[in-house]
Amino acid sequence: MKHILLISTKDRSGLIYQVSKILHEAGLNIEKNDEFVDRDAMIFFMRTQIAGALDEKWILATLQNALDKDAHITLKPMAKKSLIILATKENHCLGDLLLRYDSGELHAHIQAVIANHNDLEGLVRRFDIPFYCVESSDDRQAHEQALTDIIDRYCPDVIALAKYMRILSPMFVARYAGKMINIHHSFLPAFIGANPYKQAYERGVKIIGATAHFVTQDLDEGPIIAQDIIKIDHTFSWQDMQKAGRNVEKSVFAHALDLILHDRVFINGNKTIVF
Amino acid sequence: MKHILLISTKDRSGLIYQVSKILHEAGLNIEKNDEFVDRDAMIFFMRTQIAGALDEKWILATLQNALDKDAHITLKPMAKKSLIILATKENHCLGDLLLRYDSGELHAHIQAVIANHNDLEGLVRRFDIPFYCVESSDDRQAHEQALTDIIDRYCPDVIALAKYMRILSPMFVARYAGKMINIHHSFLPAFIGANPYKQAYERGVKIIGATAHFVTQDLDEGPIIAQDIIKIDHTFSWQDMQKAGRNVEKSVFAHALDLILHDRVFINGNKTIVF
Amino acid sequence: MKHILLISTKDRSGLIYQVSKILHEAGLNIEKNDEFVDRDAMIFFMRTQIAGALDEKWILATLQNALDKDAHITLKPMAKKSLIILATKENHCLGDLLLRYDSGELHAHIQAVIANHNDLEGLVRRFDIPFYCVESSDDRQAHEQALTDIIDRYCPDVIALAKYMRILSPMFVARYAGKMINIHHSFLPAFIGANPYKQAYERGVKIIGATAHFVTQDLDEGPIIAQDIIKIDHTFSWQDMQKAGRNVEKSVFAHALDLILHDRVFINGNKTIVF
Amino acid sequence: MKHILLISTKDRSGLIYQVSKILHEAGLNIEKNDEFVDRDAMIFFMRTQIAGALDEKWILATLQNALDKDAHITLKPMAKKSLIILATKENHCLGDLLLRYDSGELHAHIQAVIANHNDLEGLVRRFDIPFYCVESSDDRQAHEQALTDIIDRYCPDVIALAKYMRILSPMFVARYAGKMINIHHSFLPAFIGANPYKQAYERGVKIIGATAHFVTQDLDEGPIIAQDIIKIDHTFSWQDMQKAGRNVEKSVFAHALDLILHDRVFINGNKTIVF
Repeated sequence: MKHILLISTKDRSGLIYQVSKILHEAGLNIEKNDEFVDRDAMIFFMRTQIAGALDEKWILATLQNALDKDAHITLKPMAKKSLIILATKENHCLGDLLLRYDSGELHAHIQAVIANHNDLEGLVRRFDIPFYCVESSDDRQAHEQALTDIIDRYCPDVIALAKYMRILSPMFVARYAGKMINIHHSFLPAFIGANPYKQAYERGVKIIGATAHFVTQDLDEGPIIAQDIIKIDHTFSWQDMQKAGRNVEKSVFAHALDLILHDRVFINGNKTIVF
Repeated sequence: MKHILLISTKDRSGLIYQVSKILHEAGLNIEKNDEFVDRDAMIFFMRTQIAGALDEKWILATLQNALDKDAHITLKPMAKKSLIILATKENHCLGDLLLRYDSGELHAHIQAVIANHNDLEGLVRRFDIPFYCVESSDDRQAHEQALTDIIDRYCPDVIALAKYMRILSPMFVARYAGKMINIHHSFLPAFIGANPYKQAYERGVKIIGATAHFVTQDLDEGPIIAQDIIKIDHTFSWQDMQKAGRNVEKSVFAHALDLILHDRVFINGNKTIVF
Repeated sequence: MKHILLISTKDRSGLIYQVSKILHEAGLNIEKNDEFVDRDAMIFFMRTQIAGALDEKWILATLQNALDKDAHITLKPMAKKSLIILATKENHCLGDLLLRYDSGELHAHIQAVIANHNDLEGLVRRFDIPFYCVESSDDRQAHEQALTDIIDRYCPDVIALAKYMRILSPMFVARYAGKMINIHHSFLPAFIGANPYKQAYERGVKIIGATAHFVTQDLDEGPIIAQDIIKIDHTFSWQDMQKAGRNVEKSVFAHALDLILHDRVFINGNKTIVF
Repeated sequence: MKHILLISTKDRSGLIYQVSKILHEAGLNIEKNDEFVDRDAMIFFMRTQIAGALDEKWILATLQNALDKDAHITLKPMAKKSLIILATKENHCLGDLLLRYDSGELHAHIQAVIANHNDLEGLVRRFDIPFYCVESSDDRQAHEQALTDIIDRYCPDVIALAKYMRILSPMFVARYAGKMINIHHSFLPAFIGANPYKQAYERGVKIIGATAHFVTQDLDEGPIIAQDIIKIDHTFSWQDMQKAGRNVEKSVFAHALDLILHDRVFINGNKTIVF
């Protein structure tokens, strides 16, 4: 059995020694180890992949005892996570995840897809995955309650907004803080908000891009997980940009999700650390 | 002898036919031809590389007669352009151009380098190129007059701001409209203004970039010629970003300048067409 | 109605004039035009997007008359092409095309998918597309006859080998010359042949890539349409490379196919011209 | 004072613990730590950046005692290395290093430049660096003896072949094993040997690239440190490829050298590990 140990704590000397000592004494082998110190905030981050049978409680208690009281310590089995996908009408990010799921490549169980339109129902059902349509309505609170009812039935580890084109309330976002990721169709912080391709067309840029980020209360302002771009030229209409952009949207989103599903991402204030 | 013919005019049917007819009847061969129609503004752009001896006046008059009265028509020999470089303290964009000049790769004669500090004097003199230091002063008008005095002595075709870190007045910009290009150290329109790397660090982006653009009266808002990015991660301090960014700054700038020096760029409102 | 005119012929002066004259006299508008001259072989290539009602026969006859007798001239309506996909077991390239088809983005009608294993049958049937399993057998001739029987029933414009992992005979290849494209999972000409990711792993490269090319009689030697790469590092096992490589395989393949489906590719000896 | 500790040894459980224990007991702080296990060869690699005053001898002896007898352990102060550059006629890789040296960015002292032609003498002397011309001759042994005489006078840490276009003998290569890096103007293993751009042109590839690698006895077969590519199209002559390629050659070479100068590269058989 393999586990992932995640630690973030105030930086001081000897942390790697202390952690590796405890793991060593527990007879565990460190297969892969990554550390980083944020020198502005003086926070130490560590992700350790451990092999060997372990007593989870003992490890956590011993580590908590050795490190600072307020150290964040998590120990998780290396296993597929449960995933809910939210979408609207576009099939490319969602479909890409469904294909990866179908081939066994996705490190997750897709529990359900929820959309605010029913355009994607056929696609999702083809893959034998539950599909829920929760149509947008003027009563945002009722709408989000309906979403929450479905989501909480599944207790997902991760919620992936695969081009879910509706703004979510701070209350909804707070409920799933640190679990919900989004794909924005521009290289943030450029072109925040609606129709970034039209904005890009009007500005006459020579690159377009996509940004996967955690969802926070400020629209398009959450911690960035991954970004990439493609080059364009003057012959691209904004519809051409949109078409070309889908390729980078889906690859960035799938990559960011893969990182999340392997516990390779720490949130550090408004930034991420990606091991 | 080879020439470059540049035409921009209101789009209508038959333009390629009319231009190619005139060139054909003049006994000229079209070696390379590019066209583009901006369908929003209905403007036709054409760049034609012509081989053969030609009567410049006759060609221009005949074309002007055949096309709309207000068509923009330019005919230039394919020759090295004259270039003035403005810089401040950083040597990477300037030095890169000097090396390309030294090897004969740069399609230009560097006439002079003007800087507002004298840090780069040694470097420039090593390449036997006139160096002028026009120090920044509180009297912007006097400062820019001093710049203008030097520049106008050389009548350069192109003015390259190779990390010239001082804002220029609208009057100065207007004087050299369409001739002056700048390198901005971010993928515009993200991180406009001062210290984009610090802004990028604070936002926690996963890519940094550079943008070469024509200088217009609105800071960092001119028509974009070329952009590129490099990937970074959480380990980069903003100084690391600055160091890594220099590589993309100099390559984007040299590329954009190469396009300008080969008359491959049309300005189309706030955008560019790059053939 | 729009058409694409494709011309390749021995280069000489006046070709653009002659073609544009005929189109102009036929009352047609050139919406987009691209030319290229291969100066080694002295061949002229031209792709013209034409708007307006036209008499196809008259245009072709008039062009053939004006140009060299042995000029290659094709005139096609801008319309979706018919497509047969061959696959084996991997779902990523095939699935990506199915999704693009499902959203209406693919500029083709997928007529059928043929595979030499039945692993992908479920996926294909989900999209309501005919699926044929023609299992590999020792009798290559019989196997390819079975393939041919199915393919010829559909008369496809294009045959896309979406990770079809079986070598085809020269006779089969010749039958569909210029119509059949393949995706090879390396940046050719590196790592020709079997298991390029294992070869890449053993060589210790820092990039892996994919190449879309026309299929010719020499394995992995056909004219290259598109290539791209991704960066890897020492932590990648060859299985990791394979997983990461799928992303670039599918994007390169979809891009190359899109070019073919829009008649943007000329074959020029063992190279391609991509407009 | 900061140091870099480099360890490679047979993998077994507890290595990180043992190393971090020794460093902790010596009162040292680990500022940055990277590990990797080659699971094929079962070799453990570790690079540790250490802050604090240390007794080098004691550290090395204690580590050697704790680890396997045949563990490779190196402890170096984080300091600029000494560098000799070999070149031929092209100025772009050499010039790029000279500029980085001039601005203080290069983490090295350039001790001398040696070339087999004197074309670059002017450039090098402009930067006040000793230049030696050791012309190629039919007597390879004498030629290499002359090179060796100069190099050994300086005892450089690193020898950078900045487009040195002459094949070196196995004896010469062996003398500087692990210290000498080269830039090859293709994405190896494609286009090994002479004139890769001509080979690339003839194959009709859509990307060209560059590879920085350690020099070993087999031409262009040494462990790869860094690679990158740029996209090209059918309009590129092989001279255009050569010109465009210089940009990627110099950036890949400078990057690889920067990694070497910061002790971030392990050689692992015919591969590298880059931390």
